[in-house]
Amino acid sequence: NNTFDPTEHPHRRLNPMTGDWVLVSPHRAKRPWQGQSELPDTERRPPYDPDCYLCPGNRRVNGEQNPCYESTYVFENDFAALKPDTPSVSTNDPLFTMAAEQGRSRVICFSPDHRKTLPELSISELMAVINCWQEQTRELGREYRWVQVFENKGAMMGCSNPHPHGQVWAQQQIPTMAARKLERFRAYYQANGRSMLADYAEREVEQRERLVFENRDWLVMVPYWAAWPFETLLLPRFELARLSDLNSDQRESLAEAIQRLTTLYDNLFQVSFPYSMGWHGAPFDQSAHPEWRVHAHFYPPLLRSATVRKFMVGYEMLTEAQRDLTPEQAAERLRSLSAIHYKREQN
Amino acid sequence: NNTFDPTEHPHRRLNPMTGDWVLVSPHRAKRPWQGQSELPDTERRPPYDPDCYLCPGNRRVNGEQNPCYESTYVFENDFAALKPDTPSVSTNDPLFTMAAEQGRSRVICFSPDHRKTLPELSISELMAVINCWQEQTRELGREYRWVQVFENKGAMMGCSNPHPHGQVWAQQQIPTMAARKLERFRAYYQANGRSMLADYAEREVEQRERLVFENRDWLVMVPYWAAWPFETLLLPRFELARLSDLNSDQRESLAEAIQRLTTLYDNLFQVSFPYSMGWHGAPFDQSAHPEWRVHAHFYPPLLRSATVRKFMVGYEMLTEAQRDLTPEQAAERLRSLSAIHYKREQN
Ligand SMILES: O=P(O)(O)O[C@H]1O[C@H](CO)[C@@H](O)[C@H](O)[C@H]1O
Ligand SMILES: O=P(O)(O)O[C@H]1O[C@H](CO)[C@@H](O)[C@H](O)[C@H]1O
Repeated sequence: NNTFDPTEHPHRRLNPMTGDWVLVSPHRAKRPWQGQSELPDTERRPPYDPDCYLCPGNRRVNGEQNPCYESTYVFENDFAALKPDTPSVSTNDPLFTMAAEQGRSRVICFSPDHRKTLPELSISELMAVINCWQEQTRELGREYRWVQVFENKGAMMGCSNPHPHGQVWAQQQIPTMAARKLERFRAYYQANGRSMLADYAEREVEQRERLVFENRDWLVMVPYWAAWPFETLLLPRFELARLSDLNSDQRESLAEAIQRLTTLYDNLFQVSFPYSMGWHGAPFDQSAHPEWRVHAHFYPPLLRSATVRKFMVGYEMLTEAQRDLTPEQAAERLRSLSAIHYKREQN
Repeated sequence: NNTFDPTEHPHRRLNPMTGDWVLVSPHRAKRPWQGQSELPDTERRPPYDPDCYLCPGNRRVNGEQNPCYESTYVFENDFAALKPDTPSVSTNDPLFTMAAEQGRSRVICFSPDHRKTLPELSISELMAVINCWQEQTRELGREYRWVQVFENKGAMMGCSNPHPHGQVWAQQQIPTMAARKLERFRAYYQANGRSMLADYAEREVEQRERLVFENRDWLVMVPYWAAWPFETLLLPRFELARLSDLNSDQRESLAEAIQRLTTLYDNLFQVSFPYSMGWHGAPFDQSAHPEWRVHAHFYPPLLRSATVRKFMVGYEMLTEAQRDLTPEQAAERLRSLSAIHYKREQN
């Protein structure tokens, strides 16, 4: 019997947002792993850590003191990758093309409580985080074309401080990923008269097999073209180009979606689940962008357990991304988990 | 004084091979690092390890026994990501595009000696490895359009066995990175009547500041658009579309270039330097490909020391690659190192 079976046979799927393909080799999940083990984050932390440079009232590397903040708190990164006052210069040589860049890098503390990650915040605390993302996007969008809100969670994802925090970087030029999406969203809109993600959202709601969570306003799915094992896409069910335009009802339903998704993630391997996440909204260039629906990506590295990650290395860096289980299998596993955080169930 | 200084001011550089930009933020190198530490590989290993499934004469997971090989040794991956007999199928839906893929995944043992990494092999042993890469490329190129030779070195790069080995994966369809390069190499060739990498090689030899090594036939440089801190590009100084067409003189000078580069890498932090490397030659599609010059990429993750790596995470995954020192600074550091391997100097 040799009829094609997606859970058995290697195949490639196209990411229509970027034009990248991913090689799906589902039978690879069976191979034994003798490589590097990760250290899962199981440490018990205090609500306030006198040595943490993000805790309220503490002093940072540059000598500045944090206020005694009670909700979210934003400050300029002490080692900013982007700065507002860089002198402008650019070259046009096709082999040596460069351009100076102006921008901002800020740190966003999600909570004064040193221990609490996103799934451990209440709905109203999560709404404060969303509010802060919105305000930053609005403010920086007045000066810069691209505003990147993101979070690196866990030491495995290069996060150097467990205090719950994310970042926002803004810049003048449209960066690589944004330019690629803009081109493909526009082509789709011109061909179909609808935004790519509006159509995609509808199809996923019909098919259901990759859906992880839905409420009135939001969808979470493992996209058809996911590269990371448990990668998800978070999408509004209504037209919205930028995070800055959410109303308060939509913020509340978004808080619920984020709480659920991050709880399922933690429950998967009963560990604080590492990931990088971030928002992609339309560029701030004075256009309406009907082709662009705002969305968030979650890219978590774990594959089999709290200690075995997926390595995106040789073939993946040089050729294309490769995954070891189907997106449908990943969605099924996430869906089957309890909606109550494992730490609460233990209490 | 506010004139632009590339070692001080954030700027973006374009990779003309892929169209991706990289954000260079050289002042970031000054920030203190309090995040994850890596475990450097400093273990002393025996020339033969009875528990290693790649050593000569040992048994693999699937029960097969390795021959008592004395030079290189190639076998089909016991958990192949690509297989020759996958039934063909594809869809044309713009949001759910997929195609089954046929191919091969093989493991290439570089040496029977369990301890020896590439820089520790003799020139004639390295020539045997190059010879094996050539033979595999030739053989698989008769059946598949794309042949990807690569090596994941070190546990940090997902390598699960320290025995010196690489891989070769071949497939029917042109993968993402290859398609992107093909398009840009062609456009450059049509506009300039020369291959992009021929022109680039000449310019780098003139400018010298990014060169790490050169001999009669080969150049090693930190490319102008390098994303990883000590990323290098290995290029022939003559027209050559594919690895399979090298003659024996060119193999010898290539062995010398690889020996030198990997020695400099190990000497940088006095540790067996992890990386992923691989070759990009023209696709096997019955065309001559005058626009394509074969080349190898080395992508090493370390940034500051044997224990502090660069994390390509939030901003990098969502926006574009970002680096913390200039390519010129990286080339200068590599050039200044001894050409004698640190382990030999210790003896
Ligand atoms: O085939 P290996 O060495 O077991 O696996 C390694 O290389 C592969 C190809 O780059 C990756 O897909 C795996 O994630 C990595 O662990
Ligand atoms: O700014 P942080 O948290 O110190 O740094 C982290 O996030 C940055 C943005 O994704 C990355 O460039 C760094 O490699 C990573 O360690």
